[in-house]
Amino acid sequence: MKLEKLVGERFKEKPSDCVVDSHALMVRGGYMKYVANGIFSSYMPLKRITRKIEAILREEMDKIDGQEVSFPVVMPASIWQESGRYDSIGKELVRFSDRSGSPVVLGMTHEEAAVQLVREYGQSYNKYPFMIYQIQTKFRDEARPKSGLIRVREFTMKDAYSFHTSQSDLEEYYDKCHKAYERIFARAGVPDVISVASDSGMMGGSVSHEFMLLTDIGEDSIVICPECDYRANMEAAEHISDTVRCEVSEPLAEVHTPGSETIEEVSSFLGCTEKETCKAVVYQRNSDDKYIVLFLRGDLEANETKLTNYLGYEIHPAVITADCGLVAGFIGPVGICEGVTVLYDKSLEGANNLVCGANKSEYHMKGLDFTRDVPSAEFRDFSKATVGGICPCCGKKTLTVSRGIEVGNIFQLGTKYTKAMNMTYTDADGNLQYPIMGCYGIGVGRLAASICEVHHDDYGPIWPISIAPWQLHLCAVRSDDAEVKAFADKLYEELLAKGVEVIYDDRNISAGVMFSDADLLGVPYRAVVSPRNMKKGIVEVVGRDKKFSAEISMDSAAEDIEKVIIEALSK
Amino acid sequence: MKLEKLVGERFKEKPSDCVVDSHALMVRGGYMKYVANGIFSSYMPLKRITRKIEAILREEMDKIDGQEVSFPVVMPASIWQESGRYDSIGKELVRFSDRSGSPVVLGMTHEEAAVQLVREYGQSYNKYPFMIYQIQTKFRDEARPKSGLIRVREFTMKDAYSFHTSQSDLEEYYDKCHKAYERIFARAGVPDVISVASDSGMMGGSVSHEFMLLTDIGEDSIVICPECDYRANMEAAEHISDTVRCEVSEPLAEVHTPGSETIEEVSSFLGCTEKETCKAVVYQRNSDDKYIVLFLRGDLEANETKLTNYLGYEIHPAVITADCGLVAGFIGPVGICEGVTVLYDKSLEGANNLVCGANKSEYHMKGLDFTRDVPSAEFRDFSKATVGGICPCCGKKTLTVSRGIEVGNIFQLGTKYTKAMNMTYTDADGNLQYPIMGCYGIGVGRLAASICEVHHDDYGPIWPISIAPWQLHLCAVRSDDAEVKAFADKLYEELLAKGVEVIYDDRNISAGVMFSDADLLGVPYRAVVSPRNMKKGIVEVVGRDKKFSAEISMDSAAEDIEKVIIEALSK
Repeated sequence: MKLEKLVGERFKEKPSDCVVDSHALMVRGGYMKYVANGIFSSYMPLKRITRKIEAILREEMDKIDGQEVSFPVVMPASIWQESGRYDSIGKELVRFSDRSGSPVVLGMTHEEAAVQLVREYGQSYNKYPFMIYQIQTKFRDEARPKSGLIRVREFTMKDAYSFHTSQSDLEEYYDKCHKAYERIFARAGVPDVISVASDSGMMGGSVSHEFMLLTDIGEDSIVICPECDYRANMEAAEHISDTVRCEVSEPLAEVHTPGSETIEEVSSFLGCTEKETCKAVVYQRNSDDKYIVLFLRGDLEANETKLTNYLGYEIHPAVITADCGLVAGFIGPVGICEGVTVLYDKSLEGANNLVCGANKSEYHMKGLDFTRDVPSAEFRDFSKATVGGICPCCGKKTLTVSRGIEVGNIFQLGTKYTKAMNMTYTDADGNLQYPIMGCYGIGVGRLAASICEVHHDDYGPIWPISIAPWQLHLCAVRSDDAEVKAFADKLYEELLAKGVEVIYDDRNISAGVMFSDADLLGVPYRAVVSPRNMKKGIVEVVGRDKKFSAEISMDSAAEDIEKVIIEALSK
Repeated sequence: MKLEKLVGERFKEKPSDCVVDSHALMVRGGYMKYVANGIFSSYMPLKRITRKIEAILREEMDKIDGQEVSFPVVMPASIWQESGRYDSIGKELVRFSDRSGSPVVLGMTHEEAAVQLVREYGQSYNKYPFMIYQIQTKFRDEARPKSGLIRVREFTMKDAYSFHTSQSDLEEYYDKCHKAYERIFARAGVPDVISVASDSGMMGGSVSHEFMLLTDIGEDSIVICPECDYRANMEAAEHISDTVRCEVSEPLAEVHTPGSETIEEVSSFLGCTEKETCKAVVYQRNSDDKYIVLFLRGDLEANETKLTNYLGYEIHPAVITADCGLVAGFIGPVGICEGVTVLYDKSLEGANNLVCGANKSEYHMKGLDFTRDVPSAEFRDFSKATVGGICPCCGKKTLTVSRGIEVGNIFQLGTKYTKAMNMTYTDADGNLQYPIMGCYGIGVGRLAASICEVHHDDYGPIWPISIAPWQLHLCAVRSDDAEVKAFADKLYEELLAKGVEVIYDDRNISAGVMFSDADLLGVPYRAVVSPRNMKKGIVEVVGRDKKFSAEISMDSAAEDIEKVIIEALSK
């Protein structure tokens, strides 16, 4: 490919709407173009990258006996009604009517379509296990698409669905897929992706893992114990409380705390630590705005995922109205108004001598003892794990919290979909059973952007050779020099004949512009033919990551460059 | 791949809803499954076929300097409003609003997206020409999807868009693409696909060609002159009339024709031929139901495509109401009511002594002379070419009409989209110009089904090896025989190691079921390991098309089978 003919623009200025580096570099490098909020077109360099990622995905899915199939983008609402998700999923699921008035949806995931495809096939136990997968366009009408290809509305995804006759068979396959995912990320140049226990969310099922690429721009918080290797998404991480009960319980007493509405204000006003307070976090149910009050220790944060999972319905942060009975800033567990759902976090179990709201404007209470004053309270884990907190696995106070991008996920779905959609098989004893499912996803574009996020410098992406748009960037510096041009042309043709993927820049432009374009394209090796190099009888080859540099004899340039590429590919 | 594990069912009975063979065989063979009207999921065999077709498409597009990109499935209405097609296209274009209320469409073609992608890039003449293409899901909300994968609503398409600075450059590229298409169809096993001149329809532009696979189940009528090789879609075929004016014009006279409303009835009643009549075909404008009356010679049919192109708006067959002024069954050009659009086909130019309606119930006229009685008439080509009609190219009365499936199309779009979307470039003289576009499409699933349509027998598809789901179907007949099983297993592994694509049936079932499954999968070569063959020391290899049969020594079975496959691939 001649760079001169490459469709797409490259430029220096960071676009003002780009917050993360991968987004800025992929716009500046002519990889993608904005079409609408969270919707992009790809130019050739990105298309080549995603096709290579797709090839890796295919190979690894085939290795674990996956069968590539394809499901529709537009699906009848009926199968989503069968699973119950037509109603349970929010506006992310695009719903509209076709010309005949039939309700349809745009696929944002394909559990329903997978069950629909194999429902008749899988009627006997001897057909199991099997796994089907596709690589296909999906649409999820995100409220806030952001960070370029990291959170979009339209995306290409590899989604796989496995079907089993026992939980142990699912678990065995789930492990196999976990290993395949490790191979995929390693092959794509990000071997440091880690798997973490995760919340299953709208997918249903119990056990699930997310594959996280740790980077500061990640949207997810990941709790890691460096001692025992416990790893979980903050949403799913268990919080073990270090509550210590004081020997003497002070009496419960009202105190005037004018203007002290926040935990920070009240603890400063009363001279106690935030840990010695009990705070209220208030939500409302989405469907009817009913109030939910969660009490937890003042130094902790509410974990809304755990809360929602427990409640079984969607909630949002509350708007506390004057007539609702709750006294904003002064809510406490003793004497709280009726008609609200009250929940207690485990951090409060057995705690005493706490400061809490008095349910009365400008007043708090001191000396709250949960055992004595709120004897009917049931305590559950509704709070977020903290840095330095207790690891739920090894019990040491070693927890760390990192940021990460989710680049893949795997779910043990159980029988949620097969039961709902009445997919059954006859077991060896002649009894009808529901198959047990697993599902396994990787977003192609997000993976590409994430790799860019962790593999770039100020000048552009540094693509791993396994997914790079080309393997070699050949520069003819001073292509107006007939000898340079002739030699570079010949080298280009020789390399192409050897199957090396070359992007060839023979424009008659300055070396500066040429090299900054090369940096933006991020091709792992750059070969420079120039008058100076030719005088020395060499072609200069350098790695985009600056870890490789060689002067290769002009006589054997094609062969030697091929060797460099082959060696890099085999790593 | 072991057949036992292949997801999908194969069965004997022809599904009642399948009208064409490819549909029936692809359902019976476990290639595809109905999801909704015109929407299907694909099982692995079809996915393998379409991926091979896609690989051929990619190679041939790359050979003519195409750059693979990707456009979104969901697009903002705004770019379709720019081109004007948001309003001009009917219900086939799916329109809905996203969660923020912004109007969006599902891509049924991507001219707008192509212009949007390269509008900034293509600002200077020296960037031209270039071609971008994608292979992507499209959705077209067809009123009447039918014939399995031949006419669907959701489909995968290779669509390409080229941009030029002169008509001659476009034409040169158009020819190149025409040749690439010929190679694509030849490589996919249907070298007999022909290109025909076509109507440009909603795409706009002037010159266009469709690539037609001739088969009786085709939806298109294709006019071919075997003498001079003139080929056109009926929609676009010019009709040359053989009208001969009689020497003596009879006087115009009213005749009572009770109950004779059709041309057949009136010509039989008056004892003339249909050719000696002038018939009226009535339409209404979709937008306001205004009437359009087309007069043409009684033996001809109206060409609605030509009519619509001339009128510039959509029409439908008329409902003639009692008060509209038209007298159904008796409409004639003399004394026709006012307020209707009246058009005249070329077949009537200079014609005389015709029978026509008298615009009065139960009455016709005789002796109509267009030159004398309708002097203001303008005659245009609004009729369909006929079998035995005059070839517009060589002038001989040699036209034939065949049926065909459109498996590809190419269009010279001109500046329709670049002008509408204000894409300009600066030419060498510094003047702003609109680039000239071409576009080039091939539907992947339709091509697969069309190939099946022309390559099958009663028992299943006969896939060309270039696109077959596998290359060899290995049958272990009597796999309960340990020697058979051991030899077949070994042969399977050896063939896989050689890179032969094998589907291996080692189920312990009857040879009859095994072979009928093999027929349905349509793999070009079948190798049979059986006790009888082993006694003879051979593996039996037969072609699915029955044109090949060989007994291959067990000792060199893997090598010899590999040779057969390699030879077939190289053809």
